[in-house]
Amino acid sequence: MTGKTVGGLEGIVADQTSISTVGKVGMGLSYRGYSIEDLARETDFEEVAYLLLYGDLPKRSELDGFRERIISFRGLPSRLRNILEQVPAEAHPMDVLRTGCSALGSMEPEPSPGDQLKTAERLLATLPGMLLYWHHFHTAGKRIDTESDEPRLACHFLNLLHGRSPDREPCNAVNVSFIIYAEHEFNASTFSARVTTSTRTDYHSAITAAIGTLKGPLHGGANEEAMKLIDRFGTPEEAEQEILRMLERKERIMGFGHRVYKEQPDPRSDIIKDWSGRLAEATGHQLLFRISERIDDVVRREKRLFPNVDFYSASLYHMCGIPTPMFTPLFVFARAAGWSAHIIEQRATGRLIRPTAEYIGPEPRKFVPVDQR
Amino acid sequence: MTGKTVGGLEGIVADQTSISTVGKVGMGLSYRGYSIEDLARETDFEEVAYLLLYGDLPKRSELDGFRERIISFRGLPSRLRNILEQVPAEAHPMDVLRTGCSALGSMEPEPSPGDQLKTAERLLATLPGMLLYWHHFHTAGKRIDTESDEPRLACHFLNLLHGRSPDREPCNAVNVSFIIYAEHEFNASTFSARVTTSTRTDYHSAITAAIGTLKGPLHGGANEEAMKLIDRFGTPEEAEQEILRMLERKERIMGFGHRVYKEQPDPRSDIIKDWSGRLAEATGHQLLFRISERIDDVVRREKRLFPNVDFYSASLYHMCGIPTPMFTPLFVFARAAGWSAHIIEQRATGRLIRPTAEYIGPEPRKFVPVDQR
Repeated sequence: MTGKTVGGLEGIVADQTSISTVGKVGMGLSYRGYSIEDLARETDFEEVAYLLLYGDLPKRSELDGFRERIISFRGLPSRLRNILEQVPAEAHPMDVLRTGCSALGSMEPEPSPGDQLKTAERLLATLPGMLLYWHHFHTAGKRIDTESDEPRLACHFLNLLHGRSPDREPCNAVNVSFIIYAEHEFNASTFSARVTTSTRTDYHSAITAAIGTLKGPLHGGANEEAMKLIDRFGTPEEAEQEILRMLERKERIMGFGHRVYKEQPDPRSDIIKDWSGRLAEATGHQLLFRISERIDDVVRREKRLFPNVDFYSASLYHMCGIPTPMFTPLFVFARAAGWSAHIIEQRATGRLIRPTAEYIGPEPRKFVPVDQR
Repeated sequence: MTGKTVGGLEGIVADQTSISTVGKVGMGLSYRGYSIEDLARETDFEEVAYLLLYGDLPKRSELDGFRERIISFRGLPSRLRNILEQVPAEAHPMDVLRTGCSALGSMEPEPSPGDQLKTAERLLATLPGMLLYWHHFHTAGKRIDTESDEPRLACHFLNLLHGRSPDREPCNAVNVSFIIYAEHEFNASTFSARVTTSTRTDYHSAITAAIGTLKGPLHGGANEEAMKLIDRFGTPEEAEQEILRMLERKERIMGFGHRVYKEQPDPRSDIIKDWSGRLAEATGHQLLFRISERIDDVVRREKRLFPNVDFYSASLYHMCGIPTPMFTPLFVFARAAGWSAHIIEQRATGRLIRPTAEYIGPEPRKFVPVDQR
């Protein structure tokens, strides 16, 4: 019971990690030593997920085996499909994933801690199918097959969403977004997965906790909020005027600012902005992109806040024909790789996470029976 | 990025709280200023839940209104009943609650933050019914009515479990266990509820996270593990010999030791031990109680570890005819009150909980394409 209260644990070093560096001098953002820029330029999400889960980039045979397993794990148990049909049409998609992940854990509990990597691969493979089975059932009354032969998770998602093999550009763009969303040290959802894991509970409990944490508008929910903002404007000029008014009213502009990236830009933002611009050209969404850029300019100029990863992913996902309520779920599909790596690390080296509190409540009070109060 | 790594956040003051004191000099364990001893002796769980949620003990009319609402909130939506039927018979009961809570959130999301108390009352009222609807469906093929007129949650639970109005003694004993399980500051499950809440996500996400965290054997799972241990022995002497052997093999004895109560006993343990002894007399389980006492004596003597709240609650629940796999769910029914109080407090005064990590992974590595690895 020592030390002073640190709201939000800001600056508290909660543990050691070998998984990623966030804004570290000389390393920037890196996953297991590889820079995010190299990974986004050179790899598929599958290589990155393998790197996070297994600690090293895969050799060709390892990568092929990993892809094959993920493809073969995409089917959903019939009980889980029944449950997804019972989750209402008007539910929040993050509630669908949270419930689906929890239910899968009740049906396919981890056989033993030695099987944790297989459990993680199974979940990575099934999450997009859970969302889209629910989606098509409730919007079109269709019971879709959640399996596909798409070798990349990004293309598998777009294939299930649109019911056809996706075009090359959206597929590549979503793939890059998955790479940069995959991992980010002790962010709130990952930290919640570690807190949950620290009682030696099971894998699905930890991921379920992380999904619910990511849902919040101060975390993964930010990409949806950013899209709603961008969507309000017809021109860059209109955007500028309204953003200035919002700043005057001290309103929070979603998709800007970050607990860790304060003095320097979020390196993920430049990558995703580049892809968003490229996609705008390919799909005829130049106006949307220019509106996004103008909002970015105004917030930087007026508040010295940088866009975070969520801001340009919003327009990028929109250009891929993805409905806005699915933006945060896309974050889940990718971050599940990072969460899994942290669950494995916490199990191997972590302790029970149990901080303490500074009591500021009532002094000792004498009990008075109910009829004398 | 300052300070040194503190594994498990031990001793880190993560925030302020007005809800409870844990092992605080001069206050011991108290909820909003009232000592746990007074509350356990004088009240029902309903008064304690009201105290935690609303900040003060209820006046008569407030308590009556609270009880009436809880009674009226006990029915489950038909979609939720359908989902519980799809959760397998062999699932872990904590997976049932985690999935049920998440699913309820998808059907009855919080209308607005102003309704958070009603949302909390609804969940307190439905959790026992979720577990027992699933239980009776899968063990007896019965679709039970989850409503009852029992004014106390403890009796409501026993009524649904055994299908009849419970006896006075077990009812009182479970009621006391709910009071002492209701709240315990920044324990791992409560802290996980606060981390989840800190992103401004919804109430059900936070409780779902907490349930999954409580499931772990280092936390709520300990009462089940304690029962399995006690159950292995036919006599106190046999227990003593085997516990000595376990200690020699450096095995962990479940139900002993606590992150916060190290130098002093857990005050909840004396209360629950007293009730366990009383119930042993009333139900003819004296041998079970003597075996528990002997284990307690040996661990205190050999390891200077005190029993925590989970050790004597194990035998107490067993004497009430409650199946062992339901022990940790009982912890949930009670702690949901404390979790709710912390969610409300975190929303009012807390910040995004986002610590940082000390990186100890690979130095920067040059990317090598897959076929050159």
